[in-house]
Amino acid sequence: MSEGESTESAGADAHVEDEGAAITELAKRRGFFFGSNEAYGGVAGFYTFGPQGAALKRNVESSWRDCFTVRLGNEEIEAPTIAPEPVFEASGHLDGFDDMLVECPECGESHRADHLIEDNTDIEEAESIPIPEVESLIAEHDLHCPNCGAELSGQAVEEFNLMFETSIGPGSGQPGYLRPETAQGIFVEFPRLKEYARNKLPFGVTQIGRAYRNEISPRKGIVRTREFTQAELEQFVDPEADEPPLDDVRDVHVRLYPATEQEAEDGEYVETTVGEAVDDGVIASDWVGYFLGVAQGWYEAIGVDTDRFRFRQHLSGERAHYASDCWDAESELDGVPVSEADGPADGDWNEIAGFAYRSDYDLSKHAEHSDESFTVFRQYDEPKTVDRPVVEPDMSQLGPEFGGTAADIADALQTLAAEDPDAFVDADEVEVEVDGEQYRVDADLANFRWEEQTEAGVHVTPHVVEPSFGVDRTVYTVISHALERDVVADEKRTYMAFEPSVAPTAVGVFPLLSNDEELVSLANEVVDDLRTAGLSVTYDDSGNIGRRYRRQDEVGTPFCVTVDQEGIEGDGPDTVTVRERDSTAQLRIPVPRLAEELSGVVTGSRTFDELRTEYEAVE
Amino acid sequence: MSEGESTESAGADAHVEDEGAAITELAKRRGFFFGSNEAYGGVAGFYTFGPQGAALKRNVESSWRDCFTVRLGNEEIEAPTIAPEPVFEASGHLDGFDDMLVECPECGESHRADHLIEDNTDIEEAESIPIPEVESLIAEHDLHCPNCGAELSGQAVEEFNLMFETSIGPGSGQPGYLRPETAQGIFVEFPRLKEYARNKLPFGVTQIGRAYRNEISPRKGIVRTREFTQAELEQFVDPEADEPPLDDVRDVHVRLYPATEQEAEDGEYVETTVGEAVDDGVIASDWVGYFLGVAQGWYEAIGVDTDRFRFRQHLSGERAHYASDCWDAESELDGVPVSEADGPADGDWNEIAGFAYRSDYDLSKHAEHSDESFTVFRQYDEPKTVDRPVVEPDMSQLGPEFGGTAADIADALQTLAAEDPDAFVDADEVEVEVDGEQYRVDADLANFRWEEQTEAGVHVTPHVVEPSFGVDRTVYTVISHALERDVVADEKRTYMAFEPSVAPTAVGVFPLLSNDEELVSLANEVVDDLRTAGLSVTYDDSGNIGRRYRRQDEVGTPFCVTVDQEGIEGDGPDTVTVRERDSTAQLRIPVPRLAEELSGVVTGSRTFDELRTEYEAVE
Repeated sequence: MSEGESTESAGADAHVEDEGAAITELAKRRGFFFGSNEAYGGVAGFYTFGPQGAALKRNVESSWRDCFTVRLGNEEIEAPTIAPEPVFEASGHLDGFDDMLVECPECGESHRADHLIEDNTDIEEAESIPIPEVESLIAEHDLHCPNCGAELSGQAVEEFNLMFETSIGPGSGQPGYLRPETAQGIFVEFPRLKEYARNKLPFGVTQIGRAYRNEISPRKGIVRTREFTQAELEQFVDPEADEPPLDDVRDVHVRLYPATEQEAEDGEYVETTVGEAVDDGVIASDWVGYFLGVAQGWYEAIGVDTDRFRFRQHLSGERAHYASDCWDAESELDGVPVSEADGPADGDWNEIAGFAYRSDYDLSKHAEHSDESFTVFRQYDEPKTVDRPVVEPDMSQLGPEFGGTAADIADALQTLAAEDPDAFVDADEVEVEVDGEQYRVDADLANFRWEEQTEAGVHVTPHVVEPSFGVDRTVYTVISHALERDVVADEKRTYMAFEPSVAPTAVGVFPLLSNDEELVSLANEVVDDLRTAGLSVTYDDSGNIGRRYRRQDEVGTPFCVTVDQEGIEGDGPDTVTVRERDSTAQLRIPVPRLAEELSGVVTGSRTFDELRTEYEAVE
Repeated sequence: MSEGESTESAGADAHVEDEGAAITELAKRRGFFFGSNEAYGGVAGFYTFGPQGAALKRNVESSWRDCFTVRLGNEEIEAPTIAPEPVFEASGHLDGFDDMLVECPECGESHRADHLIEDNTDIEEAESIPIPEVESLIAEHDLHCPNCGAELSGQAVEEFNLMFETSIGPGSGQPGYLRPETAQGIFVEFPRLKEYARNKLPFGVTQIGRAYRNEISPRKGIVRTREFTQAELEQFVDPEADEPPLDDVRDVHVRLYPATEQEAEDGEYVETTVGEAVDDGVIASDWVGYFLGVAQGWYEAIGVDTDRFRFRQHLSGERAHYASDCWDAESELDGVPVSEADGPADGDWNEIAGFAYRSDYDLSKHAEHSDESFTVFRQYDEPKTVDRPVVEPDMSQLGPEFGGTAADIADALQTLAAEDPDAFVDADEVEVEVDGEQYRVDADLANFRWEEQTEAGVHVTPHVVEPSFGVDRTVYTVISHALERDVVADEKRTYMAFEPSVAPTAVGVFPLLSNDEELVSLANEVVDDLRTAGLSVTYDDSGNIGRRYRRQDEVGTPFCVTVDQEGIEGDGPDTVTVRERDSTAQLRIPVPRLAEELSGVVTGSRTFDELRTEYEAVE
């Protein structure tokens, strides 16, 4: 049964030619992912996760949930993917969620104008260039259609909204949109969510679910698709009172690529700890720093190669105006480890998560556009006595003077007093606006005064700190970083070195001979035992044992159990062999110990090396 | 710390008035589910699952996955929710997925014409009545608009397609639709999926995900929504070779409501076992029978009340023409148990799953509409020798005679020979059609003959057996059937008697005093221990202990752990109290034993009664 393992390096660290093509081929052949609807020619930007990919994705999601929801004490919700127009009017997506589109006058193909510029000039981050300038750049650089070669100079560049639109209800219905991010489904329900949190800040709400962007030209397989999965955490904090538990991650090492280094001639990475980066002000927000630390730990746990990973700060042009600090987690997808690159610019770096301090932008917008309250009441330690401006408009005089507008004018006086009390001080008249018209009111009629008031607390619009993860891109990164090649028994081997906790299958179980009833029956018992212990198990009795190992290697199954004749002979308890994927080392373990030992090495509470000291090796 | 429990029945079995309203109120207040986007007035048919509901839903989905994917040896995939038009042309949804709509001429409100008829006449299943007849019925019964009261007689009834439409890509784009069921994402990928199954039948593919129906008038909260979650299994079988492992569920008891009983004057339920029902032909398909048995076990495991549950066979008018047998799982949602009803028609019965034998309809349709092969090759035990019709068209004569059409005519002759070989036998001429035109061909030119061929097997278009579950409806059923009321310590109590394995939270952990550092620190350790053991845990230190118990009762947490002074005094290991939700009984358990014992009772490998024999009761 031994496959005669002799493991040697096949230069697995060397830069792999066209790694993307190798992953795409393996992904399709072994059921990780593939373009959807190929029977009908497919549509760009839509992918189906096959059995292996769907399991890997679920495990990545579960791991994220454990890290960002359960362990941080947050709550997870599930909102619909379709929302009505007012939600996106408030969020700004209806007006601002656009890409620049240029259409080829010859072949009719649409292109992202900013990508054309980035691909054909030295300009980076073309997304933030105004449209007229983009049109000039296309003319200046004489850009042509990548599809048919026609000249694009002189073509109009237009804003294209990336939301998928639909219509809700019969007849003309009302417009609805597929959410471009899961976040709005949390923000819009804040008035209720704060009650579940018993009106106490800080609290966090998470969501894992589909989001949609009608990309002009989807690229790079599952890295930029039109339908994808996000895992988002919206952390609601009181900016004046709440601090993150920074000590939990103070010593976590991170590789930072701050804006200043990106803009410098020979910019370098800053290799530091979360604590130092926050203390030194490299990371401006302690909340953002905290989440970078949590995320670093998570990425390592799911098998992202730290040598192909970094946190990059947004340049000021990239950042939304309301976001005070913003960092992306980026992974390298072309097989170039940092240690082999000549500088940070080397390699194929892709955003896989964003960490933004969004201030009170999101909740304020929804408060503005709706009649709900998006604040939380913060009680003072002790009630405070403060002077507050008060007006008590004299309606007996305002009424006759302003008729039907009097009540609105009285309201406007109240608002004015709250916003600009100085307007009343020593004034003969004050001016207010009602429905766009100005009214001058005798200041005496307002009965303005300062009044001493005792206040128990203050209504705070929470700030939002948002770690937002692209699940599909994370899954792709995990696959890309797990792909290894070596030589075993004089044969080239391709295997996926997945962390056992995220591998699609934890254990493969094989009867050595598929026609030996005793072996098959014990193998089936082992399968049941392991499943009952919560492990994901696959059974395979087809082909010779070497082929079965290779099949599991290629989908990254970390452990394989083989039930053989030797193990059921003799008087003691039955034994089986357990083979570790990466070393191809095998141990003989008694069946009664199997579920516990395998659970231990899969969840990480034990290591295979520990098992090696306790169990007999198989040659 | 005792809450002075004295449990007594408060007539929890009695019919609960307006149970739906009670559930809606509790669901909103405690975070199970609520109408989405209420800050903007909401849109009918969209619901958000709050923290409790999302957790319950995830647990129901996990349990389904374990039962229908893992334990049955199936594979799960994840397809996009948007698909291009050709998929739904092939599936028939583009043409046939309609509801009957009638619009009020006064207020403009749209209604489902069939529902108006069902609600206002004795007619059932109005969905299958042709449109002209529906229009006549509206006139005949003088139906009015339920919204404004205007007369609907004379209004046109129209077909309204229930798919949400959108546009993929920039410009005019191409039409895409939100999937009305997850199934097509499996069917359309069959050519690849069969390879992952190594081209061997039977095999099953599952998917859990969102589906969308643009309902004319959504009703009943999360029971009929516009966006919902399905869990579907597509079992691909060789109709001539494959049989289900019926013995696994032969003795499972089921309550059946066959079509014949529904059509009879005093129809009754058939209380029987799966084995008998299949043997007696009450269930026509053994595969459908098998899945009813598996489903019965699953429903019981997640806490569906068997006394408010049944399998109802489709009437012949309800069934799709290609489906040879079809059953729905139905749950009663109005608090009327079968034992108290006067007959099967009593109560508020709702479809929560469907089980259909769909023949080769789905795969044949996609084979017709695409160029892919949707068959599996079944090898004969021994090669068979058969006579096959063969033609070898004489191109040297066809060419001159038919010019550019000759090749197409040759193809048409091949097809004709395969489909209707008799056309060649003793014929002088044969007729074929090419591009809509008829051509007469001298039979000799076809060179027709019978040839003896040895065949290793046959290409089979698999039949599909489809158990399809509505997850939201199942979650609603679980909530509805778990709602209990009693009196504890002279106070009325409402609690959710969820099965521990699906409860949103498995264990609540409380320090008796929130300001005692020692208690708080031990409580936090307990939380960590239990989470590490894989249990979902909530920590609560606010309010008196009785209130904390009630809060957990209302969200159905089966066990609460209280860390008290008594437990940390003395020399032995620390102890805590564990309270069971339903009985409110409390035991004192040593902390080192806690994770294992609670895991046991949550997963069902132990019972609380067993713990009672081992640990000291707390008065």
